[in-house]
Amino acid sequence: MAEYEPHKEDRFTFGLWTVGNVGRDPFGEPVRPRIEPARIVRRLAALGAYGVSLHDDDLVPPTADAAERRGIVAEFRRVVDGEGMRVPMTTVNLFSDPVFRDGALTSLDPGVRRRAIDKARAAIDLGVELGADIFVLWGGREGVETDAAKDAREALRLYREGINALTRYIRDRGYPTRIALEAKPNEPRGDIYLPTTGAMLAFIATLDDPDIVGVNPEVAHEKMAGLRAAHAIAQAQDAGKLFHVDLNDQHPGRYDQDLRFGSDDLKGAFFVVRALENGGYQGPRHFDAHAYRTEDEEGVWEFARGCMRTYLILREKVRRFEEDAEIQGLLQEARAGGKPRNERLDQLLVDLLLGVR
Amino acid sequence: MAEYEPHKEDRFTFGLWTVGNVGRDPFGEPVRPRIEPARIVRRLAALGAYGVSLHDDDLVPPTADAAERRGIVAEFRRVVDGEGMRVPMTTVNLFSDPVFRDGALTSLDPGVRRRAIDKARAAIDLGVELGADIFVLWGGREGVETDAAKDAREALRLYREGINALTRYIRDRGYPTRIALEAKPNEPRGDIYLPTTGAMLAFIATLDDPDIVGVNPEVAHEKMAGLRAAHAIAQAQDAGKLFHVDLNDQHPGRYDQDLRFGSDDLKGAFFVVRALENGGYQGPRHFDAHAYRTEDEEGVWEFARGCMRTYLILREKVRRFEEDAEIQGLLQEARAGGKPRNERLDQLLVDLLLGVR
Amino acid sequence: MAEYEPHKEDRFTFGLWTVGNVGRDPFGEPVRPRIEPARIVRRLAALGAYGVSLHDDDLVPPTADAAERRGIVAEFRRVVDGEGMRVPMTTVNLFSDPVFRDGALTSLDPGVRRRAIDKARAAIDLGVELGADIFVLWGGREGVETDAAKDAREALRLYREGINALTRYIRDRGYPTRIALEAKPNEPRGDIYLPTTGAMLAFIATLDDPDIVGVNPEVAHEKMAGLRAAHAIAQAQDAGKLFHVDLNDQHPGRYDQDLRFGSDDLKGAFFVVRALENGGYQGPRHFDAHAYRTEDEEGVWEFARGCMRTYLILREKVRRFEEDAEIQGLLQEARAGGKPRNERLDQLLVDLLLGVR
Amino acid sequence: MAEYEPHKEDRFTFGLWTVGNVGRDPFGEPVRPRIEPARIVRRLAALGAYGVSLHDDDLVPPTADAAERRGIVAEFRRVVDGEGMRVPMTTVNLFSDPVFRDGALTSLDPGVRRRAIDKARAAIDLGVELGADIFVLWGGREGVETDAAKDAREALRLYREGINALTRYIRDRGYPTRIALEAKPNEPRGDIYLPTTGAMLAFIATLDDPDIVGVNPEVAHEKMAGLRAAHAIAQAQDAGKLFHVDLNDQHPGRYDQDLRFGSDDLKGAFFVVRALENGGYQGPRHFDAHAYRTEDEEGVWEFARGCMRTYLILREKVRRFEEDAEIQGLLQEARAGGKPRNERLDQLLVDLLLGVR
Repeated sequence: MAEYEPHKEDRFTFGLWTVGNVGRDPFGEPVRPRIEPARIVRRLAALGAYGVSLHDDDLVPPTADAAERRGIVAEFRRVVDGEGMRVPMTTVNLFSDPVFRDGALTSLDPGVRRRAIDKARAAIDLGVELGADIFVLWGGREGVETDAAKDAREALRLYREGINALTRYIRDRGYPTRIALEAKPNEPRGDIYLPTTGAMLAFIATLDDPDIVGVNPEVAHEKMAGLRAAHAIAQAQDAGKLFHVDLNDQHPGRYDQDLRFGSDDLKGAFFVVRALENGGYQGPRHFDAHAYRTEDEEGVWEFARGCMRTYLILREKVRRFEEDAEIQGLLQEARAGGKPRNERLDQLLVDLLLGVR
Repeated sequence: MAEYEPHKEDRFTFGLWTVGNVGRDPFGEPVRPRIEPARIVRRLAALGAYGVSLHDDDLVPPTADAAERRGIVAEFRRVVDGEGMRVPMTTVNLFSDPVFRDGALTSLDPGVRRRAIDKARAAIDLGVELGADIFVLWGGREGVETDAAKDAREALRLYREGINALTRYIRDRGYPTRIALEAKPNEPRGDIYLPTTGAMLAFIATLDDPDIVGVNPEVAHEKMAGLRAAHAIAQAQDAGKLFHVDLNDQHPGRYDQDLRFGSDDLKGAFFVVRALENGGYQGPRHFDAHAYRTEDEEGVWEFARGCMRTYLILREKVRRFEEDAEIQGLLQEARAGGKPRNERLDQLLVDLLLGVR
Repeated sequence: MAEYEPHKEDRFTFGLWTVGNVGRDPFGEPVRPRIEPARIVRRLAALGAYGVSLHDDDLVPPTADAAERRGIVAEFRRVVDGEGMRVPMTTVNLFSDPVFRDGALTSLDPGVRRRAIDKARAAIDLGVELGADIFVLWGGREGVETDAAKDAREALRLYREGINALTRYIRDRGYPTRIALEAKPNEPRGDIYLPTTGAMLAFIATLDDPDIVGVNPEVAHEKMAGLRAAHAIAQAQDAGKLFHVDLNDQHPGRYDQDLRFGSDDLKGAFFVVRALENGGYQGPRHFDAHAYRTEDEEGVWEFARGCMRTYLILREKVRRFEEDAEIQGLLQEARAGGKPRNERLDQLLVDLLLGVR
Repeated sequence: MAEYEPHKEDRFTFGLWTVGNVGRDPFGEPVRPRIEPARIVRRLAALGAYGVSLHDDDLVPPTADAAERRGIVAEFRRVVDGEGMRVPMTTVNLFSDPVFRDGALTSLDPGVRRRAIDKARAAIDLGVELGADIFVLWGGREGVETDAAKDAREALRLYREGINALTRYIRDRGYPTRIALEAKPNEPRGDIYLPTTGAMLAFIATLDDPDIVGVNPEVAHEKMAGLRAAHAIAQAQDAGKLFHVDLNDQHPGRYDQDLRFGSDDLKGAFFVVRALENGGYQGPRHFDAHAYRTEDEEGVWEFARGCMRTYLILREKVRRFEEDAEIQGLLQEARAGGKPRNERLDQLLVDLLLGVR
């Protein structure tokens, strides 16, 4: 239906690594060829997206020299601008290189920590060059398989030093960049430090320069711990710290699935959309997900369309929920001391979601 | 919408303990008065249900003598018959009485085991009197908090002896009763033996008289272990052992919630309905759930209506899924060696569920 | 072994509700009679405990009038003092009374919120009378079964107003009381707001008077979400907010078990003890657990002894871990840029735990 | 301690893919070079192992022609025999090749199913050549991300056809091979069919030739679903179907960790060892685990030593548990109708595990 076609003003963005995912998993080899960044930008533009995001290494190979880097970045900007697209966020890959296998910012090895900070600074530079004002930091290796090998308090001190070094860098350069910290409970480490959006929000208060640091809640990461993504988003909004958001889906209590938005749990996705739409969030609706491994490139674009389409359908249902006289009346009664009618309210929502109201 | 009004031929049933739940939980006292069985039958009949199920103790207080018991049962039958209702299933409460706190059929104490068998036999008798041909057995106390206190193999042997004693009783009496075993991974015991429908199906093959023993998969119980209820149902159907089913909902990886059917996960509920409707299941669509603790009796009937309504809405969506030319075409292509189009198929289902297809 | 006998200086405390638990669960009736508070105090004193904690309603029935209350409190103080015991912490029961079934501080009903604040203030008063300087607040009903019935941001605003009212009360009265907030992800609500210690720490920063508010991490509650309790404690310590701690055990991803400390996971318990002992925590080692439902009163005291004994055994192992030359040498190597030897470190810990090193 | 040194009669085996794991994960590149099969055999022999197991592709590259294959196999046998080692089990890799991405035996595509059967038959041949009498079958791709793309009952029928084709092959050739089916709840598929050992045991009863089909319970796989591995093993033993076992460890409710045996949960590992040692299991104690990604090859052998050492320590503790007069006395009392003393029993076990009894 044309009414659920995405447009730039919907502010949908995708990571290059999401639609570009080649379908490798712990037990299987890639199933799709890599898609060039330029092609991704063009195809997403055609689908109605607002922009793309990227890790430093998604665009510029770590082996590139300065000249190569300049060439790649310039060409990429040209394509992005030509398509009327944006790069509102960049991030840094501090997890693929084996040097970071026992932590990047929290490595016990001072040389590894320096290397992580340098790589993150370069990624911040790249973001500024591309016009991004959000820098997402996901510390995927900042954790342990056994606490025998690292003390958690020592790790938190190192983590703070690392982020303080990045905010100093941003201030020193006069960058407009704000950092959005992304939590995850586990995988690829047995346990990752600061495992939830709540823990990240608390950690920010201990930083040297908390004003330019917020969070990037990821739906799937909260669900891995059996928590409600909409509640994590609400707490971030309540604290004025919702700097970015990662939309996808996940079944609770299992490996990181990065499923198409809404494909596991339509009701949970509804409340995520509601939190964003009602809560004044102005940033990108960013999808950090990938197509099933069964798909070829055609399936990848199907997947991307589906993420945006489901969001738009749910956005329309949010609007109707807020305007539904019976629903709003029941809530007003409860606020006035009337009895809760929660079964009724929930069934009205189910009817609305299923399209029979 | 009138099209989703339940009728007797839909074969919806509710346990007396479900709509009769008084809203006690581990941290709080009852919030609603008990509803008399006769009133439950009348109200459910008026709502379009097919029948009710019950534990022995739901109807007849354990303290009743034989004459009282006869009177209660006769009066209850009169009400049931008068409303054109049925009692297709009964079950036995082997979990409330403290005597069963360390196991009923698997208690190490032979006296406790005998008592459990006697109580189960009496409940089977009651079922026969009420016209039920299914006897559900949920061994809620058949488990441990620590394996130091009981060896699992010893427990399985005792469990088998107990069930063999029940099937012998059924055969000796010439009853038409079939037993449906219900699995649950934990709660109220730390770990319950035979924790999934799969484990129960396997156990049946080790019994003396497996022909009259099948399973009663409960949606919430499979979800507690993060498993898919529709897959458990499919395996039971594949084995010819789907004797009964408990419909409700649950968020994975947490306490036993017994939520209104479909209220956690609409997609999961869709596949449960699809398995039942397409798989030739002719038995009751039995709801083993209860209203939120926020509700008074009005909310309880709202809850009951919601269970049936959501089932009927999803049943209609199943019909449309099976008749959808694009969906069925994509599946046929895959069967003919064409490439999988799973993202497309799943998005078509999402559209269908959300009422935009 | 005498070396693992508890003494007052070990600062072990138990809630009246823990050893006093009567063994009711969602599927079964009480298995043990209530033990009078005075008897609990005497028995725990004899076992080597330092003190007891309590909910307002554990000591004073909600129906007591002012004179009865005075009598009960005076008599209780006499017993506590006579045994050389302490009451370092009190808390408030905002979960048992059906009036709080849809939230206490976060109820949409202003009358219910006022009642919750009044009850909490009275419980703070009681704590001051008993010499407690910590007031634990667990908002067990501050959550939802469906977000259709309450907006999470509205709930967070109400929650904050409630806690602000309590800190104002403490300041106005000149009380020495500090509040320790306790997080839990779910049960008895489908989802509880501020579900982890991390979320609570973040929330504190948004309060009017954050200085006198900290956290009370509970081992079992973090484990319910699959998180590491030792990491939650470390973050609380890092933030200077570890005001109290609840020790017990739990298997991840299931109902709230409140098991004897160390009985699920010895390694996890070791790291909890290590965080407390090495992290400068001076407060009570408080057990919030209860005996299995299989136990009579003798088993309850066995349970209490076991909690303390396991803590002391693990404390001794912590001391040996910190003094183990090989372990500390490997950690120093890693800090100096040497390669991680994490498998070796973890096996050394396993050997140490199993008593073969 | 020399007393916990492994010897051949302990029957410890490792998969080539376990100690040979290069440390790639979903977010990171390999950290260790591949270790040649011959080197693995020699090093494990030196450490006291009994043998090795392998996937077809671990030994023979899929691209090898018949002559190359013969050469590789002959050379490998020479090394194995020379070291006095054994190959008691082989298995087939039906998960790495992208052709199997939407199922191997359960692919909707008949061509893919044929290919899977052919590959499995060749792997059975290889096992026979190497003297293995157990063939493990783990259907890692036999599942779905969405049930919209495949009907679970159709999948079960296809799965059965596939296994029936393998048992026919074994019978036709007169092989001594028995098949051990391995369950896993999820990963790499969203949901894998027959997700637990219980489900696999039930499925076996529906096969054409169930006598030569049993199970290979994997500790980590049961724990992923929050279930107790020792209970799954007990049920397999009860059914006479424990053909093989995979020992490792895992934290419940997360990605497949394949940790060193005993490194997550010592108590759970104790009961696994107890089930095997007391239950008459004569087969290999097979470790399906890998070293942390922090390790180089030295760490890999440390890991292998640790798996065996922890098993032997726990085996000794099992012996002492069975001979402990107080423990056995309490169990006898319970069997004689005495009251349960489960807190006492569990604390005695904790003492025994911690080496203070």
